[in-house]
Amino acid sequence: MSQSEIAAVNRTFEDAVRKGDLDRVASLYTADAMALPPDGPVVKGPANIKQLWASVAQQIGLKDVRLQTLDLQIAGDTAYEVGEAALTLESGAAAVKYVVVWQKRDGQWRLHRDIWNAKGA
Amino acid sequence: MSQSEIAAVNRTFEDAVRKGDLDRVASLYTADAMALPPDGPVVKGPANIKQLWASVAQQIGLKDVRLQTLDLQIAGDTAYEVGEAALTLESGAAAVKYVVVWQKRDGQWRLHRDIWNAKGA
Repeated sequence: MSQSEIAAVNRTFEDAVRKGDLDRVASLYTADAMALPPDGPVVKGPANIKQLWASVAQQIGLKDVRLQTLDLQIAGDTAYEVGEAALTLESGAAAVKYVVVWQKRDGQWRLHRDIWNAKGA
Repeated sequence: MSQSEIAAVNRTFEDAVRKGDLDRVASLYTADAMALPPDGPVVKGPANIKQLWASVAQQIGLKDVRLQTLDLQIAGDTAYEVGEAALTLESGAAAVKYVVVWQKRDGQWRLHRDIWNAKGA
């Protein structure tokens, strides 16, 4: 149940990135979420995370993202996921891996902690 | 309680890195831990994580690490931490930020998911 709900949020995340709908992306995070992008400080809250994604999308020319969950553990209203993301950029492809800590708030699973780095060769 | 126990494990981690005691570092991870270093694949289990740390320590000339917890949330036997690490290298200093998912196993808090990236300027 929770597993499919979280998968559905990941599909929404992908779709929102594809459409450049950063309000929708930001809405998938908790009010007190933290995102930890490489080479930058911790970014707190949906408004700042929206700005982060706008900046990232522009900098790398982000066209598409596909999230693949490698591991998902659920403990009550907290879950943590390990995954890989395949990015389509204007300049080609890139691969990152990530850990997301999820929280269920008001019946909705939301990204609460989001950190990623390059997958490498 | 759990907060101070987790802090104590972080102090042990720092001490073990400082002494180059990679067996001790590896012993702080769960049997099914995953570490996600930048520019590399997911590394699974204490034996492989020990190798990872040996390789990282040699590559970057790691002398000392100081972990600073920015946020720690505990939910039963799972906890998740956001923090920053100040690294002392042979070549100077470096700063990374991290997310660690902790699991309490047999009464001991252990690193279960460990991912980090550069803090940047």
